[in-house]
Amino acid sequence: MRIRKFLLTENEIPDKWYNIMADMPNKPLPPLNPATKEPIGPDALAPLFPMALIMQEVSTEKWIEIPDEVREIYTLWRPTPLYRAHGLEKALGTPARIYYKYEGVSPSGSHKPNTAVPQAYYNAKEGVKKIATETGAGQWGSALSFACSHFNMECEVYMVRVSYDGKPYRKVMMNTWGANVYASPSNRTAAGRKILAEHPDSPGSLGIAISEAVEVAASDPNAKYALGSVLNHVLLHQTIIGQEALKQMEKAGEMPDIVIAPFGGGSNFAGLSFPFLRLNFEEGKKIRCIASEPASCPKLTRGVFRYDFGDTIGMTPLLPMYTLGHNFIPAPIHAGGLRYHGAGVIVSQLLKDKLIEAVSHTNPEVFKAGIIFARAEGIIPAPEATHGIATVIREAQKCKEEGVSKTILFNLCGHGHFDMKAYQDYFEGKIKEHELTDAEIRESLKELTTPEIA
Amino acid sequence: MRIRKFLLTENEIPDKWYNIMADMPNKPLPPLNPATKEPIGPDALAPLFPMALIMQEVSTEKWIEIPDEVREIYTLWRPTPLYRAHGLEKALGTPARIYYKYEGVSPSGSHKPNTAVPQAYYNAKEGVKKIATETGAGQWGSALSFACSHFNMECEVYMVRVSYDGKPYRKVMMNTWGANVYASPSNRTAAGRKILAEHPDSPGSLGIAISEAVEVAASDPNAKYALGSVLNHVLLHQTIIGQEALKQMEKAGEMPDIVIAPFGGGSNFAGLSFPFLRLNFEEGKKIRCIASEPASCPKLTRGVFRYDFGDTIGMTPLLPMYTLGHNFIPAPIHAGGLRYHGAGVIVSQLLKDKLIEAVSHTNPEVFKAGIIFARAEGIIPAPEATHGIATVIREAQKCKEEGVSKTILFNLCGHGHFDMKAYQDYFEGKIKEHELTDAEIRESLKELTTPEIA
Repeated sequence: MRIRKFLLTENEIPDKWYNIMADMPNKPLPPLNPATKEPIGPDALAPLFPMALIMQEVSTEKWIEIPDEVREIYTLWRPTPLYRAHGLEKALGTPARIYYKYEGVSPSGSHKPNTAVPQAYYNAKEGVKKIATETGAGQWGSALSFACSHFNMECEVYMVRVSYDGKPYRKVMMNTWGANVYASPSNRTAAGRKILAEHPDSPGSLGIAISEAVEVAASDPNAKYALGSVLNHVLLHQTIIGQEALKQMEKAGEMPDIVIAPFGGGSNFAGLSFPFLRLNFEEGKKIRCIASEPASCPKLTRGVFRYDFGDTIGMTPLLPMYTLGHNFIPAPIHAGGLRYHGAGVIVSQLLKDKLIEAVSHTNPEVFKAGIIFARAEGIIPAPEATHGIATVIREAQKCKEEGVSKTILFNLCGHGHFDMKAYQDYFEGKIKEHELTDAEIRESLKELTTPEIA
Repeated sequence: MRIRKFLLTENEIPDKWYNIMADMPNKPLPPLNPATKEPIGPDALAPLFPMALIMQEVSTEKWIEIPDEVREIYTLWRPTPLYRAHGLEKALGTPARIYYKYEGVSPSGSHKPNTAVPQAYYNAKEGVKKIATETGAGQWGSALSFACSHFNMECEVYMVRVSYDGKPYRKVMMNTWGANVYASPSNRTAAGRKILAEHPDSPGSLGIAISEAVEVAASDPNAKYALGSVLNHVLLHQTIIGQEALKQMEKAGEMPDIVIAPFGGGSNFAGLSFPFLRLNFEEGKKIRCIASEPASCPKLTRGVFRYDFGDTIGMTPLLPMYTLGHNFIPAPIHAGGLRYHGAGVIVSQLLKDKLIEAVSHTNPEVFKAGIIFARAEGIIPAPEATHGIATVIREAQKCKEEGVSKTILFNLCGHGHFDMKAYQDYFEGKIKEHELTDAEIRESLKELTTPEIA
């Protein structure tokens, strides 16, 4: 009997998160105050985040302890399984050895609870009564709703309009855990009203929804804000994925040559890859880490590296990132979690320093990859996850052409149970590529008045 | 840190199924030929099932080996976790110690692949090219689609109309694994056309869908039929659940006083409870095993014990079962998997012999239980599973009233990701009880001309 799954016991759940800041040869540039263009300190973030998370945001300590209360909730779904993709290898006829870490076993079905739980925990500990947030496809909003229900906190979710309409059951899921969910742009905030005045039919974007949630948090002393990706502390929490995967690859007696993950704001990719990058830093290994983004939202492969806002309206500090411009509104692809204009600062710096790679895939390409995977392995991937699978298939085919057997590991970050409409669209031939011209990207970036980076 | 989850390794997946037939004090009466009313032999089933499954159907061997190929596919999701429900205990304020086995981690989200995989395997081994089946809520159809995709077999699913309309994404899920899905009653079969002629707006039932699938299988020499519950071999395959749970309860250092599972045709209940009933038989333990059924389809609590057809049209052999009559069409509750008129013969005999118990719950009661569970434990249960949870809550409240700390184990047979419409209906106050009068049950049973049992 071939082994298809590598498990860990509850006691093997890591007790520390890995902070890559400690090992980066070039640290990211500091965030700037948008008015003064001066670096901001931790205090500037205090209206939005509890101090424990702010300290994690700026920390350069290599290891940060995971509180026992968080680890106990983690045990609801962690450690997650690592699979050897025998079925996919066979379907592709590749000599590559393919593994995947499966995060879809969490209650909300993705990797997002890995950070939602500690974020809710630290907020609860500092007496916060309500958390406002945004969500794209609904993965992050679901995760935070689930986490807040564990700490009896109110949760208010601004859900990107195109997903709100297309994924009504994600909303019901959040309601089931007790959260309130609003379509964004909404009439509940000044930011939302501003967008609606200009674009009454706006499909929304993560950038807009972030503006709304930030506004709600900033205007209520009992409320804070939470972000599901991009920020350093979010990437930090997700490193539990890669740390478990590392132990599991050791059990499998292998080390990956290539690590692949989908890319939205960076937490999915960071979660799996940073613990392997640590081996590159510490031991001089040469593990290639590849971020997979949609061709319709290509900040890593076609964006510029400069300061930009994290949201659309311009309420956040300026961050040094690969960006398509904070006004960029991506096509309404089903992979809502990847529709974000910028990349987290750590990942941006790593890409700038050529320590990681990035590739993009078209919309039809990723769904084709998703179907191949579902039939070969049995698990139906979320549209976000299909981007990583498309990269895996590309690399596995290279192995076949070159006759080499590389070991590939990827992050199957979530299941597609709430995305069956997307698969339906694929079967009905409705999945098209949203061709993005250079002129459109130049146009979006032209409006930027934020500081450039030399 | 409290332990919330008890895992097993891949090597601890049982290598044999447990056949309770070997231990039953009274064996079930034989199935009868509907024309002659004479007992039928294994050959009579050959048009519908491969011989390996027929031999399991009639076997009285205590242990039946699980083929390595099946165990390898099982490892995609097995062993499944066993949880201690600390959150639910706290929410109920009960001294009861509550555990649950979670089968929702399978690719199709329920316990059904446990039997779908071996059924597909044995069919493939005997050269079958196509399997026809019925599905209620879609759990079984999804599972068989998944299983058939592993063996490159065609899969044709007759899905009860009310579920087909209410759960379109279950259909897409089956399509994703390559299956063809039709609403039942359909125009594709004589059985379907007969029903439609009499009831053009028929919401369908499992009994009708079974008639259709059986007809398709019986009329195509390359096709066979597969059933997702009721039959002995299906119950047999599901015993892997209880066998794992037994090992996990031992790890937790406890033995359940009460074992609870939802009841549709019997495989869910049998899967968890039979390995514990074995201890009652072998060691004289007194573990109470309780089947939870909907008040709107109460064959165990309000049906009669007699011979009846397994399907609506009357194409199957006559089976000695608790039944509401094969013409009974239950109210269109969301727990589609529990909308079946009869109970499997083994479970029926055990109930007749008072070796197990049965209770029923109303529709609003089960959804209330489901919400309590989702908020307390984080996992959103399938509507079928909420029936078991309602029984758990009832027993846990008894413990509270009596001040005793019993250990309760139940089968969380699936997640509710494809049932969010049901939760939406609950939040919108649309979940009502379908009061079933004694007169209605008498009416349904009156038409029966099948043999009574003394």
